[in-house]
This record gives sequence, C-alpha cells and structure tokens, in this order.
Amino acid sequence: MCTVGVIGLGLIGGSMALDLKRRGFAACTLGVEQDPVAAEAAKTIGLVDEVVSYEDCIARADIIVVAVPVGTAVKMVPDILNHFEQGDKIVIDVCSTKSQICHATQYHPHRGQFVSTHPMAGTEYSGPWAAQPGLFDGRACIFANTEDSHPKAVKTIEELYAVLNMRPIYMNADQHDVHTAYVSHISHVTSFALALTVLDKEKDEKHIFDLASGGFSSTVRLAKSNADMWVPILSQNHDNVLHVMDTYIDKMLQFRDAIATYDETRIRELIAEANKIKKILR
Amino acid sequence: MCTVGVIGLGLIGGSMALDLKRRGFAACTLGVEQDPVAAEAAKTIGLVDEVVSYEDCIARADIIVVAVPVGTAVKMVPDILNHFEQGDKIVIDVCSTKSQICHATQYHPHRGQFVSTHPMAGTEYSGPWAAQPGLFDGRACIFANTEDSHPKAVKTIEELYAVLNMRPIYMNADQHDVHTAYVSHISHVTSFALALTVLDKEKDEKHIFDLASGGFSSTVRLAKSNADMWVPILSQNHDNVLHVMDTYIDKMLQFRDAIATYDETRIRELIAEANKIKKILR
Repeated sequence: MCTVGVIGLGLIGGSMALDLKRRGFAACTLGVEQDPVAAEAAKTIGLVDEVVSYEDCIARADIIVVAVPVGTAVKMVPDILNHFEQGDKIVIDVCSTKSQICHATQYHPHRGQFVSTHPMAGTEYSGPWAAQPGLFDGRACIFANTEDSHPKAVKTIEELYAVLNMRPIYMNADQHDVHTAYVSHISHVTSFALALTVLDKEKDEKHIFDLASGGFSSTVRLAKSNADMWVPILSQNHDNVLHVMDTYIDKMLQFRDAIATYDETRIRELIAEANKIKKILR
Repeated sequence: MCTVGVIGLGLIGGSMALDLKRRGFAACTLGVEQDPVAAEAAKTIGLVDEVVSYEDCIARADIIVVAVPVGTAVKMVPDILNHFEQGDKIVIDVCSTKSQICHATQYHPHRGQFVSTHPMAGTEYSGPWAAQPGLFDGRACIFANTEDSHPKAVKTIEELYAVLNMRPIYMNADQHDVHTAYVSHISHVTSFALALTVLDKEKDEKHIFDLASGGFSSTVRLAKSNADMWVPILSQNHDNVLHVMDTYIDKMLQFRDAIATYDETRIRELIAEANKIKKILR
C-alpha cells in the first residue's frame, strides 16, 4: 500500500485514482488539477482523497501518475525527475505518444525512476465528470522502453496495472507511435473529417439525428474527442500520422474511382478486402 | 391480424418477421429465401411459420415485405405488383435507397398498393443468423413518396411499423437518397477505407487486436458490412455518394495540410468544429 499522486484529474487520471484506491493498491490518493472548476468537481465526486499542489504531490506521493495532455507531459516528467533524489519514488506517464517523452527523459540522471506507459482505454468524453470505475478492465497497456527504467520500478508499475486488470504489452517507443498512428490516431482523424463533412453538407440537424441510426453514430463517435488532447498527439506523431493519412486518402480515391465508373466488380473487391477486418475484430 | 410474407430472410427481413409475429400483428408469417442454406437456417431458428415459394407467398400473403438487396428489389417490386389484382394486398420494400425503386414503379397501374419504406436500423451482420427481436425499437422509419400510395395502404403500413416501435418520417425519395448519402452511406465508405488502410499498413494482426481499444473498433465496425447489400446502394446512389465523398476528401486534405505544416491553431479549429456533432448526437 502506497500513496499515489495523480496529476490531471480527467478521464484517465480520475479513473485510475478511483480504481487504485477502491481496489486497495493505494492507501491514499492525491490529486493535482490546474483548472479550478475541474478541481472542485473532482473533490465533489471524490476522485481522490485530497486535492493538493504540484509540489506537495511530488513530495508526498510514492508513485506519481502524469495524466495531462502529451505536450505538457513532455516538460512535466523531466521536471518531476529533477525533484527526485536517488530513491524509490516513481513517475509514470499515460500519454498516447511515446517517442518524444522517452527522448526528452533519455539522459536524465533519474531516468530509471520513470516508467512510460499507455493504457489503451478511454471514451470520447473528458474531464473529471468522465472518470469511471472499471475503465481499464481487460484492456491492453503498453510499456515503452522498459530497459531504460529500473527493473524494480517496472515491477511496481506492472503491479499497478495488474490491479487495473490490464494486459501488459512491451514495445519500443518509436514502434508504439507507428502502430498507434495506424490503429488509433487515424480513426480519430477519419471521425473528425466525417463530422466536418456531415455538418457541412447536412444543414438540418433534425435529419442528422433521425438518420444517425444507420451506423453514423458509432463511426463519428470519436469526433467528440477533445482538442487539448488531440492537437499535441497529431502534432507529435506528425510523420507517422501523415504517412497513414496518405494511405487512407489513396484508399478513398480508389473507392471514388470505382463508384464514379460504376465498376461494381471493383467496389465488390474493395468491400471484400475491407471485410477481412472481421477475422481480427469480433 | 393478417398474413405477412417476407421475401429475403436476412437481418432486416428476419427481424421483422420475428417481431410482427411475436407482437401479434401477423397471424401467420411466410418466408421466401432463395439461398438453400439460409432457408434451412431460417426454418431451424423459426424466423417464420413457413418457408414457401415466391409465387405462394404472393398468392397467400396480405402484406409482402421485400427485404432483398436494392438491385434485386427494383425488379421484384414491379413484378409483384404485376401479380396483384386491384384489391387490398400491399407490397413494401425496406431498401436503403429510394429513388430508383420509386421511379421503377411510378406509372405501374397498381402503384397505390406499394409503400416504399426504409427502417433505419441494422447491425454490421447479415443473414438469418443476424436476425434479432427488438432490432427496430425506438428507431426512425422513413416513408418515401407516400402520396403515390393508397392512403389505406399507408395507414396499414404505419400500423405495422408502430408495432415495431418505429418513429415514422415522411420524405421525398430523392431527398431521402441525398440525406442517407450524407449521414449513412458515407460512414460505410469511410469505414471500408479505414479497414483497407489498417490492413494494408499493419501487417501484424496481433497489434491490430491489441491496439483496437483506442476507438478503432467502433470506427471500423461498419467495414464488416456485406458487399451484396452495399455494392448496389453505392452504385444506385452514385451521384449523391460521390458528392459527399468529394467533400469528405476535401476535409481530410484540410486536416493533412494543417498537420503537415504543424499548424496547431488550424488543427484545433478543425477539431473544435468537428466537436459540434456533440450537440446533435449524445
């Protein structure tokens, strides 16, 4: 049992704090939240035992979870390591991109006390209001560049994620960013583009609402995602995201050509190829 | 209480037959299914009281539901009307495009006995195995060009959909095809393209499975949809689908430019605009 400090009491940070306390991993949970309204809400909801200052959190917590947008986290993790003395304190991040944060900390004298992770769970909602128990159950958690962390620190964080019922997957930070661009980041971009298209073409909101049952609502769900989180992800993972977007635009143009030329054989081939995703995802 | 005949015992036809019988609208349900394996399955599952021939179904049923892919339906509905004498029998279609089928029947002497509808419900699965009770509950059902049907026939079909708990929406067939291209058809194309992209870029199926929790699985869900259904929809709704695809490709290129030039202000603007979909869909 230890004290866990969570910096950023949003969907991910808030949900982690909830389950780490409820499931007995943390004896005490501290929270840091810059936004006063969110801080007040986190207190009201009871996401953590105490809302404290950044400095208090670093001083009192055994494990610090940095759950802020990735642009801020890249500066915050080295700063927290600066506060650490050689010792047992551990800082982890939960960001959706891993290369920059691992590069930014690579030569830090306390690098061993940092474990870089990406719990692959979430919803399209954000803020302390979006936090929920059980959010991580059964999902995958990526551990990036664990060879740069102290084995004892990695073991402690493996225990933390085991309490959250997550399956650990070990990956190089750069490889992580390639794979998440392919599987996760592109999905968000296609959803944003879909929402923009429908909002542009369909001026009548009533029609959108009425017709959304035709699969639109699940396809566009991610377009509700927060700009504060996604601007830095798309920006940091720039090269990989552009690469996969180019492939995507090419596939759309293949579809467009087939439809424009009434080439039903080709449309059928493209759909049959796309259907192979069934074998991978139930 | 009447006899309802369903031609095509797939997801939509099978689910309708189930609920119309269970909820007491139909005293007897007849089914027609060309595919012998699907016909056998429909019998085993008990989707209808009897599986009969096309001719028997037309002769015995008071209401005939044509639930086959739209390319076939466009020829089948006029053929069924040819079998009708002036009388009380009604045929309805449940197709996802409405213009062609309404044009194909427009001047038929028995046009009044045809009611063209589009129940906006479904899943990404198909076949009699996919049929389920309650599929239509709470969803919208579009009635197209009801001014061309006998008012009494429209009233009977309104009662049928009321039993399925659907909200009726009245629309011109051409307008229907514009709106469904915007809201439904484009979602399918973007999902197909997403599946093609990920299958192309990510050769390691294990990674797709592990990382799919990041929203990918909901965005790509529609890519499991059946080619037999979607080839004729995309082909029949050609002009509207191409128009909305062009807007979509343009939005993707705007995103691409913003990311390529590290223009975080512009990325933020695009995401904030896309977020407006939240106000329309919960």
